This record gives sequence, C-alpha cells and structure tokens, in this order.
Amino acid sequence: MNPGPASFNRIAIVGLGLIGGSIGLAIRQFMPEARTTGYDADPAVRARAAELQLAGRICDSAAEAVSEADLVILCVPVGAMGVAAQEIAAALPGNAVVSDVGSSKQSIYEALSAALPGNCVIPAHPVAGTEHSGPDAGFATLFQQRWCIVTPPAGADPVQVSRLVAFWETLGAMVDTMDPKHHDLVLAVTSHIPHLIAYTIVGTASELEDVTRSEVIKYSAGGFRDFTRIAASDPTMWRDVFLANRDAVLVMLQRFLDDLSSMQEAIVEGDGDTLFDRFTHTRAIRRSIVALGQDDARPNFGRQDNE
Amino acid sequence: MNPGPASFNRIAIVGLGLIGGSIGLAIRQFMPEARTTGYDADPAVRARAAELQLAGRICDSAAEAVSEADLVILCVPVGAMGVAAQEIAAALPGNAVVSDVGSSKQSIYEALSAALPGNCVIPAHPVAGTEHSGPDAGFATLFQQRWCIVTPPAGADPVQVSRLVAFWETLGAMVDTMDPKHHDLVLAVTSHIPHLIAYTIVGTASELEDVTRSEVIKYSAGGFRDFTRIAASDPTMWRDVFLANRDAVLVMLQRFLDDLSSMQEAIVEGDGDTLFDRFTHTRAIRRSIVALGQDDARPNFGRQDNE
Repeated sequence: MNPGPASFNRIAIVGLGLIGGSIGLAIRQFMPEARTTGYDADPAVRARAAELQLAGRICDSAAEAVSEADLVILCVPVGAMGVAAQEIAAALPGNAVVSDVGSSKQSIYEALSAALPGNCVIPAHPVAGTEHSGPDAGFATLFQQRWCIVTPPAGADPVQVSRLVAFWETLGAMVDTMDPKHHDLVLAVTSHIPHLIAYTIVGTASELEDVTRSEVIKYSAGGFRDFTRIAASDPTMWRDVFLANRDAVLVMLQRFLDDLSSMQEAIVEGDGDTLFDRFTHTRAIRRSIVALGQDDARPNFGRQDNE
Repeated sequence: MNPGPASFNRIAIVGLGLIGGSIGLAIRQFMPEARTTGYDADPAVRARAAELQLAGRICDSAAEAVSEADLVILCVPVGAMGVAAQEIAAALPGNAVVSDVGSSKQSIYEALSAALPGNCVIPAHPVAGTEHSGPDAGFATLFQQRWCIVTPPAGADPVQVSRLVAFWETLGAMVDTMDPKHHDLVLAVTSHIPHLIAYTIVGTASELEDVTRSEVIKYSAGGFRDFTRIAASDPTMWRDVFLANRDAVLVMLQRFLDDLSSMQEAIVEGDGDTLFDRFTHTRAIRRSIVALGQDDARPNFGRQDNE
C-alpha cells in the first residue's frame, strides 16, 4: 500500500468524532509515513482523542492543526463547515487542498469556497458509518470496501482531484466522482429520506395512546427495530443534513409521499393485485444489493439470534 | 424440556413454508415424542418437505393431515386461512385445537370460527421470521427467545389456552396473551407499517429518472439497504396482511403521515430546533430495544463488513 510520491503527507483532521477519528486511525495504519494533526472544538473530545491517538498531534486550535498541512479534512457537522473554514482561513497554507466528509455537497462547496477563496476545495463524502458517534466509535477499517464519493466542482485542478482519489483508495475505499448537485439527489434517496422516515415512524410509535411503548419495544422484531437503528444516528449531524440538502430532500420526499398515497388507496380499496405487483417488484433491488456485496445475504445480516 | 402430560402430541401443520417448516423442525428437536403430519397445497413444496423431513409424515391432503390431530396449526398466507379451514372441516376431530401463525388476528379468528364452529379456535402469532421464505428457509431454533402472541377470543377454554401457551414455550418462545383486536393495532405499528414504508421507498427509488438504479444500489449503505431487506419479504403474505388488517393499518398509516408532514414542514421552514428535538427523542427507544435483548447492539448488528 505505497501511496506514491504525489500523496499527501501532512494531513490535518478538524473534528474527531466517528469519521474524523476513523480517518486518523486509518492513516496511521495504511499511510504510516504521513504525519497527522487533529483538532476538535470540544476539549473533552480532544483529551480523549489524545488518549486514543486518533492523530499524531492533537492541537489546541484548528488554525494550529492546519498550519503545515497539505490536506485538510473537515469532519464537523454539515452546519458547522462554514465556521470551521473561517477558523482555518488565516493559518492555511496556500497550496493545501481542503476537503470534507459531509453528507450534503453543493451547500458545503459553496460555504468552503466562500471562506477559502485562495485554496483548492474538493468536497468528498465517504458513504460509511455506524449508528455510534464520538471519538470512541472510530476504527481504522471503517472505509474498507465502502464507497467514497469525491465531488470536484467545475474547474477543479485534475491533479489535486487525483491525489484526493488516491488518498481515499489508500484508506481502503472505492472511489466514485460526480457533480456535487447530483450527489445530493442520489444521497437524498439512498440515505436522507430513509433516515427521515425512520426518525418519523419511531416518533409516531413512541407517542401512541392505544399501544404502549413497552409493547412497541417487545414486538419490535417484526420490522420496527431495523428503523430504530437508523433513528439512533447523531441528531446534530442529521438536523444539519436536512437543512443543508433541503431542496433535494423535499423533491424526493414528495415522490415518496405520492407513492405512499397510492399504496394507501390500494389498501382502502382492497386492491390486492396492485399491492402484490409492488411487493414483487422490490425483491429484485434487494437481490442486486446483495449480489454487489453491499449487504450481507444471511438472514438478519447474521444477527446472532437469527431474529 | 419435558412438555408435560397435558401437552399436544399429534400435531398437524398445514402450510410448509418458513414458519410451518420451522415448527416441524422445532417439534422434532424439542418435543421428540410428538408425532407430526404436514401438508402443503403445492406438490413441489410437499416433495421438498419430505426430503427435509419437516414433518414425520407428509400427507396428500389437508384432511388426511389433520384426521388424527389434537392440534392443527394453519401456516398458510393470511388470505388462505378461510379456505384451509374449510378443507379440514369434515376430517377434523372434534376435540382438536385449531391455531395459526398469521400476522393479523381478528379477521383470521372470524374466518376460522365461521368454518369450524365445533372446534376450539385459538389464534396465535409467533413474531419471528426472516426475509427468506419457502420450505428450505426453516430452522428449528427460529422461535428461540422470540415472542409468540396467543390471542384467545372471549370465552376460550382456559385449559386449551394453557396447553397452547405451553406448546410455544416448549419450542423456545416467550409467550404473551392479548385480545385479537389489540394485537392487530400493536402489530400494525411494529411490523405492518414498517413493511409498507419499506416496500414504498424501495419502489420510489427504483423508478427515478434523475438517479439511476445502479446508483441507488451502489450507495445503499447510507440507510436504504436496511429497507430493502424488509422489502424482500414474501409478497403474497404481505398483500394478505394489508388486506386482512386494513382498519388498524389505515389508522396507524394516517398517524405516520401526519407526523411526516410535520417533519416536511420543519424542513421547508428551516426549523432546525424541531428536527433536533425529534431526532433526540428517538434514541431512547433504540436504547430500550437493545437493553431488552430485542436487537444486537453491535454496529450493523454484527454485519461482517462493519458497514
């Protein structure tokens, strides 16, 4: 795993939660010659990051962390990207590439390029994570065999794009590149709407009068519990995702609502043929996901209890 | 695991898919002294069931299978329960208890008691399953540590209810009893609505023009893939569930739609506080489910790839 002569070797990580911490651990494992600096706005996180050695040096300010970097990766919540960029602006070397890991790309590109007009900004999004958050949740192999979407804005320096692609490949990711706006539509449907739905149904279920919360919990194996896992994701991160990717989320949400209304109508009318057709159609997608290695084909993904 | 003197020992299983087959295998493992007969309307399933020894004797008709039974368990799709009951009516011993495994209870109770007015009918619902179906999908430990809800109608013989409860406990299940109508509300929220939502969003995602199906599949790890697992469940079973449990499903669906509209409104208005409050609230439910052993706390339930 030689990252090659053009690779980054002074990497600053701003934000040391699940993703930032995992990047630090992955660099240590897969790019042992690179030096890393890290910063988090929360002093308790900085202290824990130092104990866990998430970066070679944990700094007391974002400016200090980036002052000698050739690559800066902002791993803060989507809504904090603009402020983080302003904090590093004065200290940032002019030749440093600035990237991030946010789940929404067009709005982040706009915020970063406005705050850092002299630097090469190339947003990216590793499609990886768990429902856990914080510095203790990170691990070096988080990005192995997962997709990372690099979203170069129009006119981005192709040499720097290649360096960033190679960086993510060195950490084990499969890299795809696409336009930031298209990324936002793709992720709205594959990630943001599923999260919104999961948060909503879990909320609905917890506030019923005719079914108790303990009944909901006891009988969750029938399908509900899969939604609770997604709905346990970090609230700050997800609030920011919905605010930052509002337009694409609202487009996809309306399509989902239209389709759900037509399901509702089929149930009201007792139209079993329509329901059967829809339910048959969706099996093909599942087969493709398993065939492409994007999920585990074992029942319940190998949950130990076999459901 | 001595099931005791009052236990059933001539058990007929009608329908030999995932659940019926698993019951047969579980009886052989946990009640080795009991005799089992089995029947399935599909000759190919009967042949496969004989190879797999899902029951001690595979019969050529439902009537033959039940002719000496003291317990009959109907494991056919919810919509086929009434017909299955009519098929066994003439051959059924008068002292046989009739039960089932369907996901909707009030409508099944009405269908079974109409077809079998002389027998003790006690519906039940093991809340267990996988996304796989058919005779090859069964396994003896499917019910271990899973809930089984027994729904005695008003006036049911308490001795027979106790025998049925003991039967499910012998197969490893934890048993709860409740009124059939209340069961239907509880399952609408914990199982039926989650399935309806999952089928719908998978359908929505597969028919977009601006995002390709291959993009949906590639980036499914961001949340979408968890829905595809649920949406791969058996279409016939689920069509019947929505038709049979229509009233409770429509009540719960309307509540979900109201809550989703208020989320949509918060996104439109950029109301981050409301989103954050909702997203925080749902974490507590997840913690309870994991604490009660209803799910695996490991990231991705121990998926081997760590997402």
